[in-house]
Amino acid sequence: MSPKICFIGAGNLATQLSKVFQKEGFCISQIYSRSEKSAKLLADKLNTDYCTAIKDLNAGADIYFVALKDSALDEVLTQIGFTNKLVVHCSGSLPLSILEKYSDNSGVFYPLQTFSKNRDVDFSSIPIFIESSLVANEKILLEFAEKISNSVSILDSERRKLLHISAVFASNFVNHFYTISSEILKSKEIPFDVLKPLILETALKVKEMEPEKGQTGPAVRFDENVISAHLNELEYFKDYQELYKLISKSIFEHHSKLK
Amino acid sequence: MSPKICFIGAGNLATQLSKVFQKEGFCISQIYSRSEKSAKLLADKLNTDYCTAIKDLNAGADIYFVALKDSALDEVLTQIGFTNKLVVHCSGSLPLSILEKYSDNSGVFYPLQTFSKNRDVDFSSIPIFIESSLVANEKILLEFAEKISNSVSILDSERRKLLHISAVFASNFVNHFYTISSEILKSKEIPFDVLKPLILETALKVKEMEPEKGQTGPAVRFDENVISAHLNELEYFKDYQELYKLISKSIFEHHSKLK
Repeated sequence: MSPKICFIGAGNLATQLSKVFQKEGFCISQIYSRSEKSAKLLADKLNTDYCTAIKDLNAGADIYFVALKDSALDEVLTQIGFTNKLVVHCSGSLPLSILEKYSDNSGVFYPLQTFSKNRDVDFSSIPIFIESSLVANEKILLEFAEKISNSVSILDSERRKLLHISAVFASNFVNHFYTISSEILKSKEIPFDVLKPLILETALKVKEMEPEKGQTGPAVRFDENVISAHLNELEYFKDYQELYKLISKSIFEHHSKLK
Repeated sequence: MSPKICFIGAGNLATQLSKVFQKEGFCISQIYSRSEKSAKLLADKLNTDYCTAIKDLNAGADIYFVALKDSALDEVLTQIGFTNKLVVHCSGSLPLSILEKYSDNSGVFYPLQTFSKNRDVDFSSIPIFIESSLVANEKILLEFAEKISNSVSILDSERRKLLHISAVFASNFVNHFYTISSEILKSKEIPFDVLKPLILETALKVKEMEPEKGQTGPAVRFDENVISAHLNELEYFKDYQELYKLISKSIFEHHSKLK
């Protein structure tokens, strides 16, 4: 019989992960979220049950996936009464040890991707990083991960934390820069669409070329005229002016070291 | 007869632009670069002539494409003796007016993309922005641009400068963050390859979803635990710690305003 999975959390990651597990034939038995709206939204998508109080959590599931924001995790997990079930968290930053006080069987299941509720992604290429202190649990988690992805590895908490930081730079901060550029364009009524081929090519380039070798632009050429003209223009975007200065300096320093 | 094109500059942009013009049947009659190595490298690729002194520039070409770093432009152009030929620059930042003192026929031809010498790109989807003060020259430049791209527009110098700044954020700064993430991963011997699906998805997501709506990560969730754990970890990367702090603040402030 297919193992029963319970999701604690109904955010971006919980939504996409529960959907792909269900698609692969696993049984999602229940969704928990403090927010009834989020819990119901996801439970409806999966045609399953939900609850908004930890005390109503179904104790009969085989595995509990905790996909909460890190700051909410402790508060929710202290309320969980069953200590022999396999409880895994999906956080890049939190160590495995944070679960060990709540459960004799714990693990980490970290898919490295940016998830949104309304955008489905192809899990087969998403790297998933597993950790557990018991070999038996590690084996279970590997099986779960390999069911949905072709890129599964074991990674300890310390290295996972660094991986997460690098992902913040390569994705969250990158996306914020897309937002900044969109805002700058709006000020002159230029459509954001014109940047899309550039954005895509920048991402594709790095698949084949080390990023430092593909660096272009005024900072790496140390084109002071352009940099100071840009800084002048950014007078109307004070916060972005500061960012522009600091990042140009970082690019210049990094590439000066390479020469 | 096909118009004769002369390239002043043999860098990333000159390389890719001259190659695509040749591919489309234009005649590239000469390459100028102060660096003999660069001039020869590109001239060999195109099977054409090159020179390393402005005085040796062929006066018989129909159009001169200036693809130099902005700070070198003035010095090179003051040496050009022919004032009735069509001279165009390819710079996002420089106004059209910078050419007007050197030539009675001038224009701007700005392809919005990140170029490297050794990576060919598909020009058909690259937006090209044209400017000229004479309608006749504008028409010539539109014809050139439409020969290689399906996305050609007229844009004035002021708006082009803003467009260039937005491109620096969306591409140059983005690529530097790929470099930073690669460096962070190297410190723990994690291969950069694991980030590639995330990098690609971050770029693809923005094709369909406004970037501010697709923002994920600790800063937009205001997950203080994660942010402070990351800052602690970045003690070993002091410069990046400063960037992390500033950008997280920027993300948080931007998204607080939206709520």
